[in-house]
Amino acid sequence: MTGPGIHPEVRLSHTDAFTFRDWLATGQATALVPVGAFEQHGPHLPLGTDGLLSTAIAEAVARQTGARVAQPLTYGYKSQQKSGGGNHLPGTVSLDAVTLIGVTRCLVSSLLAQGVRHVVLLNGHYENYQFLYEGVDLALGDLGLSAEDGPSVVLLSYWDYVSEQTLGAVYPDGFPGWDIEHGGVLETSLMLHLEPGLVQLERAVDHPPAQLPRFDRLPVVAGRTPETGCLSAPTGSDAGKGRLMFEQVVADLSADLVAELGLAAGPA
Amino acid sequence: MTGPGIHPEVRLSHTDAFTFRDWLATGQATALVPVGAFEQHGPHLPLGTDGLLSTAIAEAVARQTGARVAQPLTYGYKSQQKSGGGNHLPGTVSLDAVTLIGVTRCLVSSLLAQGVRHVVLLNGHYENYQFLYEGVDLALGDLGLSAEDGPSVVLLSYWDYVSEQTLGAVYPDGFPGWDIEHGGVLETSLMLHLEPGLVQLERAVDHPPAQLPRFDRLPVVAGRTPETGCLSAPTGSDAGKGRLMFEQVVADLSADLVAELGLAAGPA
Amino acid sequence: MTGPGIHPEVRLSHTDAFTFRDWLATGQATALVPVGAFEQHGPHLPLGTDGLLSTAIAEAVARQTGARVAQPLTYGYKSQQKSGGGNHLPGTVSLDAVTLIGVTRCLVSSLLAQGVRHVVLLNGHYENYQFLYEGVDLALGDLGLSAEDGPSVVLLSYWDYVSEQTLGAVYPDGFPGWDIEHGGVLETSLMLHLEPGLVQLERAVDHPPAQLPRFDRLPVVAGRTPETGCLSAPTGSDAGKGRLMFEQVVADLSADLVAELGLAAGPA
Amino acid sequence: MTGPGIHPEVRLSHTDAFTFRDWLATGQATALVPVGAFEQHGPHLPLGTDGLLSTAIAEAVARQTGARVAQPLTYGYKSQQKSGGGNHLPGTVSLDAVTLIGVTRCLVSSLLAQGVRHVVLLNGHYENYQFLYEGVDLALGDLGLSAEDGPSVVLLSYWDYVSEQTLGAVYPDGFPGWDIEHGGVLETSLMLHLEPGLVQLERAVDHPPAQLPRFDRLPVVAGRTPETGCLSAPTGSDAGKGRLMFEQVVADLSADLVAELGLAAGPA
Amino acid sequence: MTGPGIHPEVRLSHTDAFTFRDWLATGQATALVPVGAFEQHGPHLPLGTDGLLSTAIAEAVARQTGARVAQPLTYGYKSQQKSGGGNHLPGTVSLDAVTLIGVTRCLVSSLLAQGVRHVVLLNGHYENYQFLYEGVDLALGDLGLSAEDGPSVVLLSYWDYVSEQTLGAVYPDGFPGWDIEHGGVLETSLMLHLEPGLVQLERAVDHPPAQLPRFDRLPVVAGRTPETGCLSAPTGSDAGKGRLMFEQVVADLSADLVAELGLAAGPA
Amino acid sequence: MTGPGIHPEVRLSHTDAFTFRDWLATGQATALVPVGAFEQHGPHLPLGTDGLLSTAIAEAVARQTGARVAQPLTYGYKSQQKSGGGNHLPGTVSLDAVTLIGVTRCLVSSLLAQGVRHVVLLNGHYENYQFLYEGVDLALGDLGLSAEDGPSVVLLSYWDYVSEQTLGAVYPDGFPGWDIEHGGVLETSLMLHLEPGLVQLERAVDHPPAQLPRFDRLPVVAGRTPETGCLSAPTGSDAGKGRLMFEQVVADLSADLVAELGLAAGPA
Repeated sequence: MTGPGIHPEVRLSHTDAFTFRDWLATGQATALVPVGAFEQHGPHLPLGTDGLLSTAIAEAVARQTGARVAQPLTYGYKSQQKSGGGNHLPGTVSLDAVTLIGVTRCLVSSLLAQGVRHVVLLNGHYENYQFLYEGVDLALGDLGLSAEDGPSVVLLSYWDYVSEQTLGAVYPDGFPGWDIEHGGVLETSLMLHLEPGLVQLERAVDHPPAQLPRFDRLPVVAGRTPETGCLSAPTGSDAGKGRLMFEQVVADLSADLVAELGLAAGPA
Repeated sequence: MTGPGIHPEVRLSHTDAFTFRDWLATGQATALVPVGAFEQHGPHLPLGTDGLLSTAIAEAVARQTGARVAQPLTYGYKSQQKSGGGNHLPGTVSLDAVTLIGVTRCLVSSLLAQGVRHVVLLNGHYENYQFLYEGVDLALGDLGLSAEDGPSVVLLSYWDYVSEQTLGAVYPDGFPGWDIEHGGVLETSLMLHLEPGLVQLERAVDHPPAQLPRFDRLPVVAGRTPETGCLSAPTGSDAGKGRLMFEQVVADLSADLVAELGLAAGPA
Repeated sequence: MTGPGIHPEVRLSHTDAFTFRDWLATGQATALVPVGAFEQHGPHLPLGTDGLLSTAIAEAVARQTGARVAQPLTYGYKSQQKSGGGNHLPGTVSLDAVTLIGVTRCLVSSLLAQGVRHVVLLNGHYENYQFLYEGVDLALGDLGLSAEDGPSVVLLSYWDYVSEQTLGAVYPDGFPGWDIEHGGVLETSLMLHLEPGLVQLERAVDHPPAQLPRFDRLPVVAGRTPETGCLSAPTGSDAGKGRLMFEQVVADLSADLVAELGLAAGPA
Repeated sequence: MTGPGIHPEVRLSHTDAFTFRDWLATGQATALVPVGAFEQHGPHLPLGTDGLLSTAIAEAVARQTGARVAQPLTYGYKSQQKSGGGNHLPGTVSLDAVTLIGVTRCLVSSLLAQGVRHVVLLNGHYENYQFLYEGVDLALGDLGLSAEDGPSVVLLSYWDYVSEQTLGAVYPDGFPGWDIEHGGVLETSLMLHLEPGLVQLERAVDHPPAQLPRFDRLPVVAGRTPETGCLSAPTGSDAGKGRLMFEQVVADLSADLVAELGLAAGPA
Repeated sequence: MTGPGIHPEVRLSHTDAFTFRDWLATGQATALVPVGAFEQHGPHLPLGTDGLLSTAIAEAVARQTGARVAQPLTYGYKSQQKSGGGNHLPGTVSLDAVTLIGVTRCLVSSLLAQGVRHVVLLNGHYENYQFLYEGVDLALGDLGLSAEDGPSVVLLSYWDYVSEQTLGAVYPDGFPGWDIEHGGVLETSLMLHLEPGLVQLERAVDHPPAQLPRFDRLPVVAGRTPETGCLSAPTGSDAGKGRLMFEQVVADLSADLVAELGLAAGPA
Repeated sequence: MTGPGIHPEVRLSHTDAFTFRDWLATGQATALVPVGAFEQHGPHLPLGTDGLLSTAIAEAVARQTGARVAQPLTYGYKSQQKSGGGNHLPGTVSLDAVTLIGVTRCLVSSLLAQGVRHVVLLNGHYENYQFLYEGVDLALGDLGLSAEDGPSVVLLSYWDYVSEQTLGAVYPDGFPGWDIEHGGVLETSLMLHLEPGLVQLERAVDHPPAQLPRFDRLPVVAGRTPETGCLSAPTGSDAGKGRLMFEQVVADLSADLVAELGLAAGPA
């Protein structure tokens, strides 16, 4: 864990309580909470990929904006066949919806009640999004927060920040769509840039993208997921593409938070 | 309620218990459950639009496949700004996540436990999807169902069945994306075809599509939603586009269910 | 669905958001929420009887009082042997208690939070009552409402409005008691008046009233429920009795709401 | 606590674990669980009246049938205006619905899982009934019990065992109805027979029965409950009426359990 | 039930609502809630031991301080092997965590909302503590209570009040530790003092203390619990030791409550 | 993060799904789940101390036994005054009980359902224990696991493994008790050994141990917690003591798991 996204100095878990108290006292304390999953990502990527990526992005954004990074949520909602291959696959340890909503609600409530001004949930696992949203909404209700210009929560998935231009560079033959980007070029390239020691590219398998129906069926028809567990092959991944995506996403997301929340721009 | 999508003869609510029992005894009983919302849809569409559309599609699919339509779920998850304008808008009455999950779990459990072979949840409100999914997953766990070839549940949103070709015809200037299709050309044209008496096209307002950020922020910044509550204007809607979409979606969805669940093809 | 109780013009699902907003602005907006069930009602009545009846009554009351009708809750609590024959019977799809409480809590909260002044839950399925009550009580707690003269919720079952005089006319040989009125003369006559096309009187079976113990036993002893699923036979039902009950109940309930909530009397 | 209903020798709380084990080994162990409430009962009856009465009846029934009495549930669901005066009155400490359902589910599950053959819930607080029912139903589902002739649960409210003949003797001027029997002749007479030291008849107030509407309104309109908190006055209560009711109810309930569950008849 | 700890005059269940109201009006009403369990306590002690002891202590403390005793919670959390022998043993009827938390939350909320100034939860079953704590914390949140000098809740287990000096007298050969005091000298001696008629000392078995690992393992390894179900033998118990402990605990706990909550010292 | 407890090669988050599958296939896969908290630990220790310590111990134990380490749970139950200073202190972000139970239940269920043979929850935050226990118990119930010799879960807090001999060496003036070891010599010495870069010993404050009552009071009386937030001062901490404790705990815990679960002894 010595890649370009590892910056423990921005982690709240490494901060003492009195420094934390001073930080709250600024009135502009912004906490980024990376969210991931324990989910199979094929033979070439580690089970913790989603949280490793969202944490690396959060740490880089923190350095650009003066925000701090809270301990990541490393377990997420069940893997779904159309976005993650399915929860039946070995290497997939999940929270159910009510629990993930509860975790989110508790964290957001705790952070805001202490005096954190803004919480940013930075999601790295597609299936989590709606449950994070509900947890946020319930927490704000608990705290009676409804003013637009007071404490707030921002929720996003990092891939929504990959620009059209970047997509064009990363997928020169055309972007196959986010829905089947699981264990594919995006995640693999980012990991090659950020955590190359955890990528076993020699184990990657080339295969056509998964052909999935327009519906979900449960119990899942297992044969619809490719044997690798990836919905598209990582063929064509490289660290340069990963760096391109990482830097563009970090820059745009940082800019958004600076503009939206009034944070300080530029390296911390 | 006399439009082309109104076929009460396929509704289970209008069936007696002994006929229902005979239907179960076929071993192939398939129940379609339309899901909607009570949500503002601008000045020109009624609050129940999502459920009216999913019910009409379900009834037409039932006639094509021999399936039957259970009472629709007419209340859905909270409206979100990026897909429905936001839950702060008047005319938006919602269930929270845990409740919607619970409703889905109960219905799917009850239907399958009685002997219904397949349940099809036909969603008409974007925000519902993940909560319906969780309810289905929990119900199958309750019943201990995990075999691929036994009783099953199919879950889908009807707009995922609008084909590329249809999109080209409905949006000759280019499709703006599903994310801002709320109160826009799709829903308005479908309603003009199916329930023209409930559309007040003269009240529709033309405005550019909403410009929404790549994140969600809560409490919501109300000014980001257009004053109409629509994320794109219904300008250019007509009943012919509605009919085109309706018939294509019904045909393709019916074909999918016939192929997937072994239902009978052709008009009942 | 063209019976005397069908008045879609009073349905909120058919109203647009801006008209809804104007209605809220009157400060006297009263929303009626019909509640039913998906429950076997013998061989001669449809599965949706409870919701069809409560909806018809609600629509007629709305016309008398200026109230509006929200989308009905068409799924209810489990059928119990002593009031509905039992949940083990085919044609009975139910919510558990926690879910029904949650649905009620969400709806009442949402409606009152938007500015609806009074919510009236009009119950048509005996087993629902206590769970509706709890949902109302929790919603009022959520909103911090405890003043007697502010926003309020009224909860009732429609049969509690059948007068002694009407009972005498409907049951000339003596009223057997509400507890075994399931699929019997009350429901059948009301349906014959309101939805004659959905009643198959030729399938009705005459049999003595069910003899049920003073206790509930679970698991249910199935043989205690008559084979028809009705707790008393519909023998002697006719549309005239249905009309008599319907009009008397609508009149008395309307009068109660006018007096209690200060609504406008007389046809809308 | 030395009245005629006090028989600690039948209480499981006073039994040791090895005697309990022998009892289970008979294969016919039947546990009675009295259920009450902490609820105001006017100026003349104690707050624990409902549990004191159901416990006394349970102990007497146990002596007639060989059953044993588990620790009573002494907190119940919220007092409702139409049956108990209302939860707003001082001296009313309540469980919400989800909690009462959970308590019931845990107890029934624990008792049956250990080898108790039948559980009898003997209710003494009107408002509890539906929540006890749901707890039982969920517990049976947890244990996978659905056979009619296996372990079972019986649920009842003791006043449903007061016979017509007894009512005639207790209310010579006509029975005003169970709905307003709260702190009235039934409860007061039973307490005078069973726990005379806890009745302050000199504090009783005479007043006409409460006139309550056919609906529930929340927030409650406090003035509809008489100032005493009783829905009908205890005027005319005496220990002889209490003894008559007590002995008749105990006899009939014991006979029902003997017949239904195959218990041994006659004094233990 | 005529032992030295039985003082029904301090029980709220035996009080009428108007006297209760006067008591609230003092502004210093303090309610003690004894908490116990239904749990095996070996061959010589009754299943209700935990609640009998906490109730007796509460009643004696009430007499010393002017507090009153609410109905005890007689069902508790699951017995754990390292403190109670384990939940697999016959004679162990339990609540799960969520339910016990809910019961505590409801009671504390109800009591404080009515005007009780302080609630004291007096625990007699080790496993309950954390769940009681959570229930209290949630109740205070519900009521918005956070001031140090307002209404409050005190939570304790009675054995934490046994002094070093008393321990020396009760265990002349050295105190083996609270963790294995289940059915041992403490509980047996207290019961011999308070409820001698419920102790069958002749059935007590002498055996060495249980040797339990530093971890919990589930499913439990049953053989680690001694066959008696006691974690240490009651050998050496006598009523004098029970009296010594009882009087010292009551005195110290009363003194603490007087000092902490400003109650009146001395016999009531 | 380069201290002696950092061994990423044993982390499941860094493993790919196919290697994970092979590991499951051994039939002896044992997953250690470290559990911590986000809790103030005075001015000299970081907020993530509890999770950093339990993770370091887990990784070392994994190397001794062939077990693997799952992603730690880095958020825990509310800080309590008598063990952690209290949840009101800045730098304390917590889960409520129901959520922590749910997280534990999901993880244990997921891991065992996939084929992990044994799960070891290695707790580093006192307040968590009972909620972890409940989560485990519910998960085993969900899976229907009750056999002693099948899949199992082991639950422990690491300080229960500090031997008497080690305590004598670490606290030459006598051990003050675990209850006030929060931010004191144990945690500080362990951190000095394992993560010296995260300890700011120069900020440590010397003060006498906290004097806390035998009860919990809520709302908390803040003044009872020392201003540092530590319940005892870290005076006398050093890395040597930390190493002594760490190595002894790792050795004894590894030996226990080897003996209990049949794991392989010796360095992996």
